[in-house]
Amino acid sequence: MPEAVVTMDGWYCLHDFRSIDWTAWKYATSEDREQAINEFKQLIGKWEDTESNKEGSHALYTIVGQKADFMMMILRPTMEELNEIETAFNKTKLAEFTTPSYSYISVVELSNYMGNANEEDPEIQARLRPTLPKWNHICFYPMDKRRQGNDNWYVLEKEERAKLMYAHGMTGRQYAGKIRQIITGSIGLDDWEWGVTLFAHDVLQFKKLVYEMRFDEVTSRYGDFGSFYVGNILQTDGIDQFLHV
Amino acid sequence: MPEAVVTMDGWYCLHDFRSIDWTAWKYATSEDREQAINEFKQLIGKWEDTESNKEGSHALYTIVGQKADFMMMILRPTMEELNEIETAFNKTKLAEFTTPSYSYISVVELSNYMGNANEEDPEIQARLRPTLPKWNHICFYPMDKRRQGNDNWYVLEKEERAKLMYAHGMTGRQYAGKIRQIITGSIGLDDWEWGVTLFAHDVLQFKKLVYEMRFDEVTSRYGDFGSFYVGNILQTDGIDQFLHV
Amino acid sequence: MPEAVVTMDGWYCLHDFRSIDWTAWKYATSEDREQAINEFKQLIGKWEDTESNKEGSHALYTIVGQKADFMMMILRPTMEELNEIETAFNKTKLAEFTTPSYSYISVVELSNYMGNANEEDPEIQARLRPTLPKWNHICFYPMDKRRQGNDNWYVLEKEERAKLMYAHGMTGRQYAGKIRQIITGSIGLDDWEWGVTLFAHDVLQFKKLVYEMRFDEVTSRYGDFGSFYVGNILQTDGIDQFLHV
Amino acid sequence: MPEAVVTMDGWYCLHDFRSIDWTAWKYATSEDREQAINEFKQLIGKWEDTESNKEGSHALYTIVGQKADFMMMILRPTMEELNEIETAFNKTKLAEFTTPSYSYISVVELSNYMGNANEEDPEIQARLRPTLPKWNHICFYPMDKRRQGNDNWYVLEKEERAKLMYAHGMTGRQYAGKIRQIITGSIGLDDWEWGVTLFAHDVLQFKKLVYEMRFDEVTSRYGDFGSFYVGNILQTDGIDQFLHV
Amino acid sequence: MPEAVVTMDGWYCLHDFRSIDWTAWKYATSEDREQAINEFKQLIGKWEDTESNKEGSHALYTIVGQKADFMMMILRPTMEELNEIETAFNKTKLAEFTTPSYSYISVVELSNYMGNANEEDPEIQARLRPTLPKWNHICFYPMDKRRQGNDNWYVLEKEERAKLMYAHGMTGRQYAGKIRQIITGSIGLDDWEWGVTLFAHDVLQFKKLVYEMRFDEVTSRYGDFGSFYVGNILQTDGIDQFLHV
Repeated sequence: MPEAVVTMDGWYCLHDFRSIDWTAWKYATSEDREQAINEFKQLIGKWEDTESNKEGSHALYTIVGQKADFMMMILRPTMEELNEIETAFNKTKLAEFTTPSYSYISVVELSNYMGNANEEDPEIQARLRPTLPKWNHICFYPMDKRRQGNDNWYVLEKEERAKLMYAHGMTGRQYAGKIRQIITGSIGLDDWEWGVTLFAHDVLQFKKLVYEMRFDEVTSRYGDFGSFYVGNILQTDGIDQFLHV
Repeated sequence: MPEAVVTMDGWYCLHDFRSIDWTAWKYATSEDREQAINEFKQLIGKWEDTESNKEGSHALYTIVGQKADFMMMILRPTMEELNEIETAFNKTKLAEFTTPSYSYISVVELSNYMGNANEEDPEIQARLRPTLPKWNHICFYPMDKRRQGNDNWYVLEKEERAKLMYAHGMTGRQYAGKIRQIITGSIGLDDWEWGVTLFAHDVLQFKKLVYEMRFDEVTSRYGDFGSFYVGNILQTDGIDQFLHV
Repeated sequence: MPEAVVTMDGWYCLHDFRSIDWTAWKYATSEDREQAINEFKQLIGKWEDTESNKEGSHALYTIVGQKADFMMMILRPTMEELNEIETAFNKTKLAEFTTPSYSYISVVELSNYMGNANEEDPEIQARLRPTLPKWNHICFYPMDKRRQGNDNWYVLEKEERAKLMYAHGMTGRQYAGKIRQIITGSIGLDDWEWGVTLFAHDVLQFKKLVYEMRFDEVTSRYGDFGSFYVGNILQTDGIDQFLHV
Repeated sequence: MPEAVVTMDGWYCLHDFRSIDWTAWKYATSEDREQAINEFKQLIGKWEDTESNKEGSHALYTIVGQKADFMMMILRPTMEELNEIETAFNKTKLAEFTTPSYSYISVVELSNYMGNANEEDPEIQARLRPTLPKWNHICFYPMDKRRQGNDNWYVLEKEERAKLMYAHGMTGRQYAGKIRQIITGSIGLDDWEWGVTLFAHDVLQFKKLVYEMRFDEVTSRYGDFGSFYVGNILQTDGIDQFLHV
Repeated sequence: MPEAVVTMDGWYCLHDFRSIDWTAWKYATSEDREQAINEFKQLIGKWEDTESNKEGSHALYTIVGQKADFMMMILRPTMEELNEIETAFNKTKLAEFTTPSYSYISVVELSNYMGNANEEDPEIQARLRPTLPKWNHICFYPMDKRRQGNDNWYVLEKEERAKLMYAHGMTGRQYAGKIRQIITGSIGLDDWEWGVTLFAHDVLQFKKLVYEMRFDEVTSRYGDFGSFYVGNILQTDGIDQFLHV
């Protein structure tokens, strides 16, 4: 039986996608809209404090296309905090004008195929509890390693898997500085095995990276993908304009 | 034709997931909300009496992410009781503010591949009619044994299946004390063949267990999975805070 | 080209699953509720007359879990009658408080692999135009014979299919008296090829039968299944209690 | 590379399935209902004029089960006309009480595997621009030719495909007079490759034909099917009764 | 590991499909309808200015069948502009009477299998930043290259892929003047790998092209398709009639 690789796990992660009911929003009183925006900014203000204190991190992006209007990505040390944040948002005024579109539950994960990583290493610690970049664009998609006929990742020996993952990592390394990638594990937590969150200055880099990786054997034979969500950064001072009607 | 393994079956089980209409809840009068909460607590009080009398058991957890807001897991000796409990909840005030998200019907099941289990054994009886642990976290997912091309569980001989299940059990045994597992059978009762309910003190153990098991041949070649639901315990005295708006 | 088996076909069959809008039902006036219940009972009264006259049959069960709240199974000599009954229900007061959950259109079918059945035989006639049992529990699921790679039912010769069906029938025969089975054919009528409706005194027998049959080659290699619905009998004199709010 | 068969294409085809909101319909004023019915009959009257002028054809059937309440099948020389008819219906009073359930866009198609058909032949012309029969029952389903592993229709040589189609046609021919079949092509127009519309005096013939054809190699190995819709003819003078509440 | 082909990428693309709530539209005041139409025309007027300035392009078509009522296809140099246009539409009066049906995010893509294309070439530039034709009909569908068992596009060597793509291109070339094709890449941006948008004077050409291409090995073995949307051009001066109630 192939040996499972040991993973290192960091902060828990909630990807929370929401659609706006623009008609209801327009018909709200301007007082209600103002209250909703202020309350949302206060929530974000709290998240920013948490981020400053290195006790979590978050990202806020608008989503292009009809899959959602915006997304909140939240990192916290415990599953309870994610649940509280989600419920707190659900109780806000703004939430009255949104409908849930999609969510994903996972935990920041580093795999250690080489067996030489030291979890105490401060660099490793920083990667397990990352401050999310505020780059222009985000791309999120969930994925599985395939178990289908002759293409079954989980029957491969650990050495074979390590080799394939190493080649895959080499492809990714060419995008250093252009793309920042956060891998979160979700086996036992959500419907796919991993979530991949990419950040880029230039949105075209998402396409280039994901396309190039599709030819890596680890992907061409063993990668199965869910929906892709792509978006643009929503700065706190851009919220008013985004929601202006 | 391979021989079916004999199973021992205990209490019937309803997993009932609900989403809250937070906007309607906020706009309800505080009297209505208070009535809804009190009535829900009374329902839970009855379930607690049943549990004290060893005539059933239940668990109440909030669910993280948009799949649901909370779940009720109910064990009872008969299918009629499950139906009554479900309908009783549907008639409550609180139900007016919830929508059904997902449910699962099954029955506590122990398989007896070794053929040496004695259903009269008090320990077996306790496992067939368990009092659910009140641990911090829950994880639920339904699953099938695959019947696909060369990976067809149901054409394997009983001895082969027993061997694979034994190895799988050995993986699980390493999590003793960290994870408590309830297997419920649902062939002929719901859309998947089994439901798996895990309880843990530390939510990360779900990921570790399910990930490690994915390399067991019984899973890598023969396991197909549905959606995963993960949650945090909702104590009766936490209901007010959870529903406070 | 393998030869199709000749089937004998009886009454047409509608499985009609409905969910109740409990909130709307509670907020209806007690007059409206009373009217709705009385009208529904009158409809059932008509169905009972039809059944007494051997011009059709029906069954009424509550459904456990969120898939539906209750189901009506209707057998009639013509498709037009099924359509009329369905439309008549849709026009009732009670229907205002229900939403359609699932339905299935088929026709009672007996296959004649042995080629020795005589359609004029009164016993065959009775099985083609059956009075549905009023047993405690119902289980319904639709199914296909698989056509996938090497597991393709429709390329097997008739003799091979007959042999596999015979073994399958032997498994079923062990449940005589415990389970009554109605097979309805739906090729060309609905999305799956057959509907299976099981009746049992003890709901656990559904699980035992369906599980045991899964090891029959006809199922392990050639069976594909849709959703399973399981329920408890709803007697006419239990309707008031079921709908009491 | 296998050669594509040349097709002959006739009138464009819209299958338009609708569900009725019976509650809203009942609560409408009798004036509104009367207006809705009259306007709908006028629309049908126009379609009948078009049919009399051989400039199109149509069929109107109720649908059994919850998939829809009725369906309109419309044939016209241009895609623009289909769009206009659909939009005209959407603007009617009756449409206010219906919701769209399913639709299908295609074009009447004759394949010419033998290569000997003459598109100028009046009989061919009549089949490409058919007046739909007003038989008791309709059956509609979309289908694909499979492209899966070793069962890939599109890699077969034209001769092989012609041979398989010929045998399939022979099966169909046995149902002459019992079933009338309209094949419409939808590659590039809708989600499946073909739509099959069957008309019968006796609804059981649908099951017999589709079941028997399932053993034709062209189906057993190469046929993939969508949902099946079955219905009863709705004559103009039956509309009042159908919609009477 | 097979080498990825280098792509050239142009304008970002939003396909935005909308359904009209005809009942709400009819019950709106004529002032509201007039305002909605005027505002929508102003939006289109802006898009036309952008198109005149070669800073983007757009297309507006009604969609046949129930999948949507109309679609807007928008090309712009940045993902931010697409997002702004989408949000601007969502804030219009007309949007109050529409619901989102489907959307697709991609970027105009030219592949360069031969390795001899010069991105600076004005002709290439024009194809990367095209002015969309205003032909009578549109057809849109998303697609993947298959990765399934022995039919795995991404394990083929670049030369083999180039050869297959070349033959495919030859099929397409026969439709020059009849069909104009825009390929947009969406790996990393949306759920499928490519979007295909076809324009034709004669809608039948879509069927002929897509059918003929299905026999190209690149399609028969390696093509997987999503939903097909087909429509008729909606000129600005046809909007009033389309929306007239």
